[in-house]
Amino acid sequence: MSRELSRQRARRTETGIKQRPWRRVVNPYPPIEVLSADEVEAIHLASLRVLEELGIEFLSDGALDRLEAAGADVTRATRMVRFDRGLVAETVGRAPAMFTLHARNPERNVTMGANHIVFGSVGGPPNVTDLDRGRRPGNFADFNDFIRVIHSLNAIHMVGGIAVAPIDLSAESRHLDCCQTFLILSDRVWHATGLGRQRPADAIAMVCIAHGIDRDRLYREPAILTTINANSPRRYDGPMLDGLETMAEAGQCVCVTPFTLAGAMSPTTIAGSLVQQNAEALAGIAYVQIVNPGNPVLYGGFTSNVDMKTGAPAFGTPEYTKACLAGGQMARRYRLPYRSSNVNASNLVDAQAAYESEMALWGAVMGHANLIHHGAGWLEGGLTASFEKLVIDAEMLQMMAAFCDRIEVTEATLAVDAIAEVPPGGHFFGAAHTMARYETAFYAPIVSDWRNFETWREGGELSATQRANLIWKELLRTYEPPPMDGAVAAELAAYVARRKREIDGP
Amino acid sequence: MSRELSRQRARRTETGIKQRPWRRVVNPYPPIEVLSADEVEAIHLASLRVLEELGIEFLSDGALDRLEAAGADVTRATRMVRFDRGLVAETVGRAPAMFTLHARNPERNVTMGANHIVFGSVGGPPNVTDLDRGRRPGNFADFNDFIRVIHSLNAIHMVGGIAVAPIDLSAESRHLDCCQTFLILSDRVWHATGLGRQRPADAIAMVCIAHGIDRDRLYREPAILTTINANSPRRYDGPMLDGLETMAEAGQCVCVTPFTLAGAMSPTTIAGSLVQQNAEALAGIAYVQIVNPGNPVLYGGFTSNVDMKTGAPAFGTPEYTKACLAGGQMARRYRLPYRSSNVNASNLVDAQAAYESEMALWGAVMGHANLIHHGAGWLEGGLTASFEKLVIDAEMLQMMAAFCDRIEVTEATLAVDAIAEVPPGGHFFGAAHTMARYETAFYAPIVSDWRNFETWREGGELSATQRANLIWKELLRTYEPPPMDGAVAAELAAYVARRKREIDGP
Repeated sequence: MSRELSRQRARRTETGIKQRPWRRVVNPYPPIEVLSADEVEAIHLASLRVLEELGIEFLSDGALDRLEAAGADVTRATRMVRFDRGLVAETVGRAPAMFTLHARNPERNVTMGANHIVFGSVGGPPNVTDLDRGRRPGNFADFNDFIRVIHSLNAIHMVGGIAVAPIDLSAESRHLDCCQTFLILSDRVWHATGLGRQRPADAIAMVCIAHGIDRDRLYREPAILTTINANSPRRYDGPMLDGLETMAEAGQCVCVTPFTLAGAMSPTTIAGSLVQQNAEALAGIAYVQIVNPGNPVLYGGFTSNVDMKTGAPAFGTPEYTKACLAGGQMARRYRLPYRSSNVNASNLVDAQAAYESEMALWGAVMGHANLIHHGAGWLEGGLTASFEKLVIDAEMLQMMAAFCDRIEVTEATLAVDAIAEVPPGGHFFGAAHTMARYETAFYAPIVSDWRNFETWREGGELSATQRANLIWKELLRTYEPPPMDGAVAAELAAYVARRKREIDGP
Repeated sequence: MSRELSRQRARRTETGIKQRPWRRVVNPYPPIEVLSADEVEAIHLASLRVLEELGIEFLSDGALDRLEAAGADVTRATRMVRFDRGLVAETVGRAPAMFTLHARNPERNVTMGANHIVFGSVGGPPNVTDLDRGRRPGNFADFNDFIRVIHSLNAIHMVGGIAVAPIDLSAESRHLDCCQTFLILSDRVWHATGLGRQRPADAIAMVCIAHGIDRDRLYREPAILTTINANSPRRYDGPMLDGLETMAEAGQCVCVTPFTLAGAMSPTTIAGSLVQQNAEALAGIAYVQIVNPGNPVLYGGFTSNVDMKTGAPAFGTPEYTKACLAGGQMARRYRLPYRSSNVNASNLVDAQAAYESEMALWGAVMGHANLIHHGAGWLEGGLTASFEKLVIDAEMLQMMAAFCDRIEVTEATLAVDAIAEVPPGGHFFGAAHTMARYETAFYAPIVSDWRNFETWREGGELSATQRANLIWKELLRTYEPPPMDGAVAAELAAYVARRKREIDGP
């Protein structure tokens, strides 16, 4: 580490709010299992029938070549690929059950697998909203502010990608600006865009610059993750396959996530949608392992359903929660790390946004998801990134992290002596046992307001969403970028400038 | 059943909203266990030390007599009662693991025990609020409207008591008006007030009139439930003990619930608060079983904590959720049905109210609570009953009930044929498998709005709370009282009139 960097790191950033420190989360409780072992096996076997008898479409000649060479049954005319169960077992079996993603700041490395939970922020919305300015198309200024607030929230382990699409920038080169933002404004691991070859290749080049490492070392120390969605039903398109190959060839993590919205892109039953999710996920993971045996992957579950009367997608419903929990069971059957999400379909940050998010979060946490993608900031079925929801989600994530701290049961915490000290009808405020503990005893919230009604009213009668609005603005006001060596920043800038000239012209 | 009653029942009430029918809920999933078996035993043993060495204060000479006769170690001067572990095991062991509460309408009977979940509405708040009229002191008109809305919401199994204190009525006789409301405006089981002898005695007399049964039959077919709170730490006061005795002598259900707010009424650790909760609950349940061996009881858990900086109570926190889950483990250790709650500390029906409620609900449902008291309508730490929260909670309860419907895994739902029918890149909207299922396939919400942003905006941009406001008013507009024989109603009215003269004078 350069002297400049050491000096910058020594100056600890104090955010303007109270929150728990950044820390890794491990779920100490067994998962909720909504399927019996027989039912898991029935879904597994039905998905093998889909893979063996029906097949998956791969819209890439290069992928068809590789799949055929690996032993899959490829029909060139239809681009359909059938996988026999032996090939599925053999290829999927190459995937690691656990791996580390390396951050620019090694203290922010995260582990995917076992009972580890990584909370990521929202990625992908075309719109952005906040209470002051309302809903508007995504833009680069908001994107940068969003990343600043994400970086300031300790509950979030990972920057989950392009939180707000900066549509004011060139569509062909904006990924470069976004990668630069990820690397400059935060030092956490981040989600790269995996569409086509160019975008992940640039992300890979830039992460090497930022980490000061070469590609061999990046291969050994994977740093970035991308989501590859199946174009459900049963299709992987060309740009997705190009992205998958580029990431896997560099040893970077591929999160294979079918988008199985029951009733629209998958059958009108949760069981059937899980069969299709499982078939599509296994096909994608098999292909990653064909491209690069042992490459880090995540089994992504994203089964929800549409409202059958209107076709509108629903999220955070009871079906969604059950599918989350079942998805975890399927992932564990193959010893694969599991990805789920924190979703809702509300159009504003209200009670619905919160209760749907909680239904999703409980499904993810108790389904032993290793990555909770879209964990903070997602609104409106993913069409909008909300600054206030980002803060409220950070509270919900922080509460889940605190839930994962086990109750401490020791002679001292059982507190029979303290109970003896306080007579019937008395109180524990002044007890020695209390005095020794009161400062750190219980969960301290970010947004929640526990004042009594009168004090709250005198304080302006603010709702949780209004308080969240004040918090993200305070976080922006007190934001400081994580330390970066000036030479590295310059090299990143030069890379971006050069690539922009190549893409957009002079 | 009289001809009049049959005629009334035949005319089915249609509420003005879409909701699932009233139905019993059974949790098919194993509970979340946050304590190891050793930790459960450590809490058990520590609470036995509290009962054996420290004792519990009973502020009633009659209770002290009965406890002494039953073998407890009674110190008259201090009114402290010590229970040895043999006495605890023997008396608590008499309690039934499961029992039925009988409603005026037998179709609304509920089972307490095993994996059954009964959702009850809020009881006890002194204030009432809604978006139109704001927060105001409780009154009889609002109380009646609240019971009408509760009765109209199918997700609620049980009327959880005096939802709003009608402080415009005589404090000494208002329980009569409230019992009359419970019996006339709803036909579900209900929670009676157990303070002193007179109130539960009147409830018992009135339920006999309404059910057309005598006390022997009521004893065999318990119909009402009351909550007996320990005045934590380690005290049962006179009115609570009088209520407990009156209920137990009549064979009615007693829900023994210590109010262990960690840091104030119990130690500043969750483990210590659970020790105290367990000791107080066991003492209360032991006394119920001394008064009437085999009497239906619930083990009530209500451990939360105060904000140590302000003393304000916090609800729906990570500690609360863990205490809920741990409380279920303690109750199951004694084979006792378990009671928990749906609580929050928000001052309005916002995202905080929803996410704190969800934290409580997940603790209750996955802690295998058999009764979720205050399940709908509780706001502001229990100081206010909210009409809008009542509707939003009904949605959350209905979602939990739907979560408890297992994923159906059959050849038909696995849907390999449907997956075969739809080509890659196609959709399932018109598939035969979809057409056969689309009307009832997925969860249909009460409050949640899944329309896209533009349609929602054109529809008035209403929040979940604003939509809930429209819903409870629609439920009031379309409310119809459940059928009751005119002679029974008259007998109830005569009873209330006579007792009011006795209590309040002519």
